[in-house]
Amino acid sequence: MSHFSDHDVRLDLLRDRAFNLRWAEQAQDVIPLTAADPDFPAAPVIREAIVRYVQDGVLSYGPPQGLPIFRDSVAGYLRTRRGARVDASGVIAVNSAAAGLAMVARQWLAPGDEAIVMDPVDFLFAHTVRSAGGVPVRWSVTRTGALDLDRLASLITPRTRMLGLCNPHNPLGRCFTRDELTAIGRLAERHDLRILSDEIWSDIVYRPAGFTSMLALDEAIASRTVVVHGFSKSFCLAGLRIGYVAMTDGAACARMLAASEHPSTVDGAATVSQIGAAAAYDRALPWLDAFLEHLRARRDQAVQALNAMPGVQVQAPDATYVAFAKINDPPCTIEDLVDRLRREHGVAVVPGSPRWFGEGAAGHVRICFATSEGILRQGLERMDRGIGSIRADKA
Amino acid sequence: MSHFSDHDVRLDLLRDRAFNLRWAEQAQDVIPLTAADPDFPAAPVIREAIVRYVQDGVLSYGPPQGLPIFRDSVAGYLRTRRGARVDASGVIAVNSAAAGLAMVARQWLAPGDEAIVMDPVDFLFAHTVRSAGGVPVRWSVTRTGALDLDRLASLITPRTRMLGLCNPHNPLGRCFTRDELTAIGRLAERHDLRILSDEIWSDIVYRPAGFTSMLALDEAIASRTVVVHGFSKSFCLAGLRIGYVAMTDGAACARMLAASEHPSTVDGAATVSQIGAAAAYDRALPWLDAFLEHLRARRDQAVQALNAMPGVQVQAPDATYVAFAKINDPPCTIEDLVDRLRREHGVAVVPGSPRWFGEGAAGHVRICFATSEGILRQGLERMDRGIGSIRADKA
Repeated sequence: MSHFSDHDVRLDLLRDRAFNLRWAEQAQDVIPLTAADPDFPAAPVIREAIVRYVQDGVLSYGPPQGLPIFRDSVAGYLRTRRGARVDASGVIAVNSAAAGLAMVARQWLAPGDEAIVMDPVDFLFAHTVRSAGGVPVRWSVTRTGALDLDRLASLITPRTRMLGLCNPHNPLGRCFTRDELTAIGRLAERHDLRILSDEIWSDIVYRPAGFTSMLALDEAIASRTVVVHGFSKSFCLAGLRIGYVAMTDGAACARMLAASEHPSTVDGAATVSQIGAAAAYDRALPWLDAFLEHLRARRDQAVQALNAMPGVQVQAPDATYVAFAKINDPPCTIEDLVDRLRREHGVAVVPGSPRWFGEGAAGHVRICFATSEGILRQGLERMDRGIGSIRADKA
Repeated sequence: MSHFSDHDVRLDLLRDRAFNLRWAEQAQDVIPLTAADPDFPAAPVIREAIVRYVQDGVLSYGPPQGLPIFRDSVAGYLRTRRGARVDASGVIAVNSAAAGLAMVARQWLAPGDEAIVMDPVDFLFAHTVRSAGGVPVRWSVTRTGALDLDRLASLITPRTRMLGLCNPHNPLGRCFTRDELTAIGRLAERHDLRILSDEIWSDIVYRPAGFTSMLALDEAIASRTVVVHGFSKSFCLAGLRIGYVAMTDGAACARMLAASEHPSTVDGAATVSQIGAAAAYDRALPWLDAFLEHLRARRDQAVQALNAMPGVQVQAPDATYVAFAKINDPPCTIEDLVDRLRREHGVAVVPGSPRWFGEGAAGHVRICFATSEGILRQGLERMDRGIGSIRADKA
């Protein structure tokens, strides 16, 4: 089964349909290695499930918590693949994982409350905390090495309510171990903090690295955790806007649902999207395995090519399909470098700007490698030539 | 072309898929005339458009404002069918009309600000005002007769920021005239109020009644108006969660988009839903005409049957597919009556509870007639027998 060759990338459709800094938002000759969104079509079994559902034509209101078939699929997946004690009563379908982060932050934080988030980390952590009126407090993490738990403990104040974890970590590509997560959980227990664990990358993990869900730890930790997950990264379904929040306690989930804007119908996920997502877990896991095999090869390709560029340094990510590369002695600001790469050299990457990822991202660029071998090769060649040329200009 | 006969109603699918007080949430033998959501499948051309899009398989991120093809369709529809001076820059795709109401209320109201909403009216007006921290102030409207504009003027205080209009009106079925809307608009102009005009029912209007959009009035009024519209009522697409906000000023629209959670990806509408909605406006308007013809016959059927019930009184709605019937000398509270009708007589309707519609709804029930002739007849017969039997019990 190959779904991931160069000719599986439908550039004609991507130029029409792929927004968020990708093909449809770039000049015709630019290769975007930007937003973490694959260049491949969704799995055939997912498309077939949606087509069957839509052909029947009955597209009435879904329930506020999500379709039973969706919540059953999610709970089954979390139990069998993650060892999490979750049933359908502990799952809410949400209008993207980002919407799930916002739902939890709004409910857990009152104005002025503090939430600890990692540094660097995807901008949605600080963003959703601030949107909820809270104050993000940054905890530095690195690609490897021991977590600084003493530092984490020192950041906790009487105003701290929530610990936001990104595991596997975007953009570092780190999978936190069971021991590390347990230590973090114990700290949360001691200080009565809630844990928001964004596990949207948990399907994209490269052996021998392994993933542990916060919901798979003991009940004292799991019961104070809400996991957010989605289908855009693993199954190329960003346009469907479908994710979920999950927790072990069905009663707590019912309270979160009641306090949300789902019962009013202001918020919620499209039923068609839920059908596609349920099919992903029920029937597309073999496709996901093949995708992961393809991604491992692309990871190795990207890491090798990046490390071969003078003054560029990257550690292979254990998870995610982004490489977070350090630009040593940058010839200009990272923002200018990225801008010139895009305008003059035909390749777009994401700058490690503090406003996107936190101060810990300074001096880095993020490269998404969820594309075909040929497109990735071409994109990295342009980056190599581009950085060389920009450095030469400066010299 | 008949899409609206008894056998077009797929009870097997509705029992699985129609939530929000409808088939999937009722006992097997109950006919729901509850949520304003049709019992019919979506138009074939809409289904075909979604199927084609999904079969291609590229389901990447859409843009924050909505797909260009969606915004073009909406703007074209508003210009040609409504005479509104809107182009694609003045349209934002939202995750349901309800989400649109909430987006506008959040941006226009600061805590403590007052917003005038009608009484009675759909609960979402007061709900979204309150959720935004505002205070809903009720303005009484009736099915017929002159609007009390003096009363409206007297409700305006220095804290009033917004006027919320439901036109056509749910649950009264009233279409406000151009003169009435102009008078309201002038008042808003005088007091520098913004106007939120919910026009989700504007496709379901029975001649000789006619609909005027607030965006079709002169620029002084149109420029202070945002219209909210959706596809659930007209095109049986509630499950797709797709609506829009529209305004004449593209720059104001850009500001509203920037201040929303769309750029962060927390909020937004699924691309697949936008494709279905664009097809509705581009290709399903003949289907809509046939639906409207069917609904006019169901309206007449419902009004005749309701007025033939002893102690029940209803005026034919000029718009919407709900009948708002007064129960004279009710044998018990409206909530109890509705509860007994559902449990003992196999028909579910919506009680005119103040918490749902405002005080002006007291003593009423709302009946949705967007079903087939046979199902509607059976539902109304059950209601007739039920009310008679409950009255007899009391006597």
